[in-house]
Amino acid sequence: MNPDFLLDTPAARHLYHDVAEQLPIIDYHCHLSPKDIALDKKFRSITELWLGGDHYKWRAMRANGVDERFITGDASDWEKFEKWAETVPYTLRNPLYHWTQLELSSAFGIDEPLNPASARRIYDACNEQLADPSMSARGLMRRYGVELVCTTDDPVDSLEWHKIIRESGFEVKVLPAWRPDKAMAVADPRQYAAYVARLGRAAGIEITDYDSLMQAMAIRMDFFASQGCLLADHGLGRFPYREYSARNYFERVLAGEELEPNEIEELQSAILLDLCSMNHEHGWAQQFHFGALRNVNTKAFEKLGPDIGCDSIADGSNAEACGRLLDELNSRGSLARTIIYNLNPADNAWVATMIGNFQMDAGMPGKMQMGSGWWFNDQLFGMQAQIDTLSMQGLLSRFVGMLTDSRSFLSYPRHEYFRRLLCRILGRDIEQGMIPICEMPRVEEMVGDICYRNAKSYFKF
Amino acid sequence: MNPDFLLDTPAARHLYHDVAEQLPIIDYHCHLSPKDIALDKKFRSITELWLGGDHYKWRAMRANGVDERFITGDASDWEKFEKWAETVPYTLRNPLYHWTQLELSSAFGIDEPLNPASARRIYDACNEQLADPSMSARGLMRRYGVELVCTTDDPVDSLEWHKIIRESGFEVKVLPAWRPDKAMAVADPRQYAAYVARLGRAAGIEITDYDSLMQAMAIRMDFFASQGCLLADHGLGRFPYREYSARNYFERVLAGEELEPNEIEELQSAILLDLCSMNHEHGWAQQFHFGALRNVNTKAFEKLGPDIGCDSIADGSNAEACGRLLDELNSRGSLARTIIYNLNPADNAWVATMIGNFQMDAGMPGKMQMGSGWWFNDQLFGMQAQIDTLSMQGLLSRFVGMLTDSRSFLSYPRHEYFRRLLCRILGRDIEQGMIPICEMPRVEEMVGDICYRNAKSYFKF
Amino acid sequence: MNPDFLLDTPAARHLYHDVAEQLPIIDYHCHLSPKDIALDKKFRSITELWLGGDHYKWRAMRANGVDERFITGDASDWEKFEKWAETVPYTLRNPLYHWTQLELSSAFGIDEPLNPASARRIYDACNEQLADPSMSARGLMRRYGVELVCTTDDPVDSLEWHKIIRESGFEVKVLPAWRPDKAMAVADPRQYAAYVARLGRAAGIEITDYDSLMQAMAIRMDFFASQGCLLADHGLGRFPYREYSARNYFERVLAGEELEPNEIEELQSAILLDLCSMNHEHGWAQQFHFGALRNVNTKAFEKLGPDIGCDSIADGSNAEACGRLLDELNSRGSLARTIIYNLNPADNAWVATMIGNFQMDAGMPGKMQMGSGWWFNDQLFGMQAQIDTLSMQGLLSRFVGMLTDSRSFLSYPRHEYFRRLLCRILGRDIEQGMIPICEMPRVEEMVGDICYRNAKSYFKF
Repeated sequence: MNPDFLLDTPAARHLYHDVAEQLPIIDYHCHLSPKDIALDKKFRSITELWLGGDHYKWRAMRANGVDERFITGDASDWEKFEKWAETVPYTLRNPLYHWTQLELSSAFGIDEPLNPASARRIYDACNEQLADPSMSARGLMRRYGVELVCTTDDPVDSLEWHKIIRESGFEVKVLPAWRPDKAMAVADPRQYAAYVARLGRAAGIEITDYDSLMQAMAIRMDFFASQGCLLADHGLGRFPYREYSARNYFERVLAGEELEPNEIEELQSAILLDLCSMNHEHGWAQQFHFGALRNVNTKAFEKLGPDIGCDSIADGSNAEACGRLLDELNSRGSLARTIIYNLNPADNAWVATMIGNFQMDAGMPGKMQMGSGWWFNDQLFGMQAQIDTLSMQGLLSRFVGMLTDSRSFLSYPRHEYFRRLLCRILGRDIEQGMIPICEMPRVEEMVGDICYRNAKSYFKF
Repeated sequence: MNPDFLLDTPAARHLYHDVAEQLPIIDYHCHLSPKDIALDKKFRSITELWLGGDHYKWRAMRANGVDERFITGDASDWEKFEKWAETVPYTLRNPLYHWTQLELSSAFGIDEPLNPASARRIYDACNEQLADPSMSARGLMRRYGVELVCTTDDPVDSLEWHKIIRESGFEVKVLPAWRPDKAMAVADPRQYAAYVARLGRAAGIEITDYDSLMQAMAIRMDFFASQGCLLADHGLGRFPYREYSARNYFERVLAGEELEPNEIEELQSAILLDLCSMNHEHGWAQQFHFGALRNVNTKAFEKLGPDIGCDSIADGSNAEACGRLLDELNSRGSLARTIIYNLNPADNAWVATMIGNFQMDAGMPGKMQMGSGWWFNDQLFGMQAQIDTLSMQGLLSRFVGMLTDSRSFLSYPRHEYFRRLLCRILGRDIEQGMIPICEMPRVEEMVGDICYRNAKSYFKF
Repeated sequence: MNPDFLLDTPAARHLYHDVAEQLPIIDYHCHLSPKDIALDKKFRSITELWLGGDHYKWRAMRANGVDERFITGDASDWEKFEKWAETVPYTLRNPLYHWTQLELSSAFGIDEPLNPASARRIYDACNEQLADPSMSARGLMRRYGVELVCTTDDPVDSLEWHKIIRESGFEVKVLPAWRPDKAMAVADPRQYAAYVARLGRAAGIEITDYDSLMQAMAIRMDFFASQGCLLADHGLGRFPYREYSARNYFERVLAGEELEPNEIEELQSAILLDLCSMNHEHGWAQQFHFGALRNVNTKAFEKLGPDIGCDSIADGSNAEACGRLLDELNSRGSLARTIIYNLNPADNAWVATMIGNFQMDAGMPGKMQMGSGWWFNDQLFGMQAQIDTLSMQGLLSRFVGMLTDSRSFLSYPRHEYFRRLLCRILGRDIEQGMIPICEMPRVEEMVGDICYRNAKSYFKF
């Protein structure tokens, strides 16, 4: 990788190399396994580390005609790696091409392009390095200058691994984050009842009605807070917004009855509102991730389960529902600091303007945030569109910046990618006179804020 | 401000400085107060002139964590200005940064960036200048080379201020424009009945049914026409399109009954169609502004009212409804010259192609128009996207160009901004060989047409 | 035209001139008349050839205020050409400006801009050339290096012209393609019954129920296959997705009954699923074109019929329905190679991610395709957006590339336009270090694949 990759102006190079590059990483939303961190996992091969759970790479391999056996199947580590190496040259223009090279370069010092000719050499070199203790889970986090990560945890989780990490004196802060999606998954009564039972056990109470559900949630939130949790996360296909008529929906689901779609939405609206109010009570920030169409391929889902690369972007209307949800919370005096991530980039504009309606907390700049390019938008054009839209509709200066949202210990170069892009955008603006050169000190501060300081203060880390 | 701001090619500099810069301004849609113009209002401070009603600035200040007291509250003019000056450095990449500097520069000759260090100096300098009679409402309009403005007026308005302006011999033409949104606001029976009563008094008839409603509208339209009105404007959350079953909906609303949503839409469809037919009869151009989600923050609305910066962009489907409305008018032989402004930039493409379906009036080039980047789109990327989409789907050459849509006498630099951007786009096309250099005379004509002449002939000013 | 039009980097010039330029054209989806090819049509004038059926040009002329008499009316060929020449200077920035010059240059060697001053000269020069036998339908196809075209044919078509072409030894392959849209047009019982009767005659059976409908389709598909058909095409306003309750809908329509909207959608879902399954059985590729709002202007439709330039882009939600359709086919083991073309560019992102859910056929790279910028998107920004979105979300390397979708023998320069743009995009990436220069051999291969080889192998031509 060229050290000036993406940095096509003198200003960009200055901003990146003199400001952004050396800042620690705060990764406030990811899907790392706390257990792997607690046990300081060693990786038997680059395949395990790199291809084990990366559905971005899996999708690319499938699009390249690779047999599923070499993707999620029983092929050997080398065979899988080889297939990935065959695919890489076909990923030109896809972010995977850049990520692949950035990851090989930053973690292993390998600057050779990965392709069938170099595959074996790179495979062996990586595996040799991985045998070194410094290339463990924790070693990789140290190598990338990570200061803090927030994992993603279910309310029933005991957070025992977090405790072990904390007590181990690991210098990287690893905090749990509250993701209560299953408490809203009322469409499937059987699974929901089983989950509620687990939740009751975790909370030490019996859940029989809506009120005891919320009581259990409150107990678990207190526990999460005691373990260092500072933020919540809500995954929503779309924003529910029906007025809740406070009927016995919950009891009916628990009794195994399938609700009508409008009843499901009413109940979900109620649960979400109450959970969000509790986020506010706890002083947590809350995140909404909306607009995914999940498990679209039934055959693949039945064979491989969720999160295997068969999800895509939804369309449809969400603005009014989102506005009502935020307004109701705001009217209750219960609107927590909020980050909204849209998966469909066609929603960028309304999201960026929606947050402006609720920026009314004196002394809390940037209370409402438009989240960084999420998932399918975590690439050059997606991040650029998010940054440009936010810039035009709000205050880019107050943006809390990048996160990996990743399951892999090798994804930290995405912060580098983001920082380079941010510096590129600002550098171009300066070169084109869109930002006068006299503002350089302010721009430097802005880069430091967006890459590091804003997140630190926003989340109260 | 650099005199070549945005003009990054020789062709752009030529087009702007030799063609666009000196053209008068036609501001065919704004929200200026006719009273302020009639009385030639003097401004007690830059705060009153600049921050008094500018919800763009308010949103930025709120996003920066400024207390509402310094925005719409009882803080002093200086305190409010100071808070704005504190916010400006955080607006880098937002259009407010450029507008702020363009406005200070063009009205006050101040080229220093506004920030906390310069705030007092700039505040005092501006206020000193504002004490001069040449800095009155009319003085500012003269300074910016304004030739004509159209205000935005309710059908019940007496237009008395317009009469005073006209009779005062003010060299800038100030025309009323017809905005009958309240005649469609049937969702709230109490407010609607009160409005209908006022409308009846203004028209000098009693309104008891749908027919007398339309009779009153016709009377008021004739009056507006007699006062120089040449265009209408319709604000629509979304395009209504239900077939009207001609039931007694209107009478029921007048009697205080709340209609069902589908009944509201039927009645609104009928009113809109009839109003649009009357636009055509009067030879007026008509504008549709659609896609806003208004007053999203109930708490703020109850405290501060409408138009205070708590509106945002709606999503959802409008193409079919818009097509039906235009088709019905076209079939009736009643389709006036029409400008459609979409607030959600995701709608750019269909709007730009929709207008092409009804461009069938011989001798009336550009009868159907895609409106210039509106509100949240009145910024660099928004205007660029509108210009690019229109260019690809229609004839940019026939575009009626820019308007301020503003409440402020300091917003005319937005025309400058637009003109610079237009010249930048065309200049880049020339430099890149997208437009051959031999077409320069045509491009010069095109710039003059879009910046001035098209509007003049389109609206029959 | 500048020989380096659009090629703004050394790499772009290399890629275009050394790789793309000389490749034959595979035009796998167009609307050419097989009869015109069979009879090797001569054109009496440039007007007939160029303006006879080109609704892009018609729309531009209408937007320029040209009387319909000079567009689709009884004006002379010269008069119509003159009006087009008057319009061309107003098309700056519209793709028509470039197409016009590219077409005049590539077919007639005319490099002078068309405008009122040059109109007569160019008209006469073109007509003189058209009198030469080499400028016939087939002559033009030879001139542009066309290797293969697929026309668009109704199931009832006898394909007799295809037979004549084939037997004539014409060196350009002309294949039929299956477009069974009328078999889904159940909303109008009268027209549908008439069509079903024709279909029955073509198939040699009596169609009385859903099963015999499908039997007739199967017979016709076998016939199409025997005539060289390799791909199907389905035009969908939006994706239907209702679960089919297998009621006697078909019989009711045949009996002249108008179905309810939800019944129409159920029936269409069933027909589409079955047709798609049969596409798979035949080993054909299938195309979905969705998102058009057709015949929006009723008056124009009644006077001039369909496909006259009064169509536009629809909005609204399609992702879930599209996903269900593909999933059902996939679950049946009946998902053919599929290309999805969206008309609304706001749908680019979800379409590009949707195809990734079903890329699971080992050995069939790029099984699921996002179609090239369709119709209103067949222009610089539209094609760029499609290429960029596909690049970010999938494998651009596997893209089957460009098609004309055209009714005209002069549209082949659109392939040139596309190839230049593709090389421009890749050239810029190389210049900016987004693609390292060491990948040049791979990029060359990619250009050849996208411009020619991918289509050839994907469609099994």
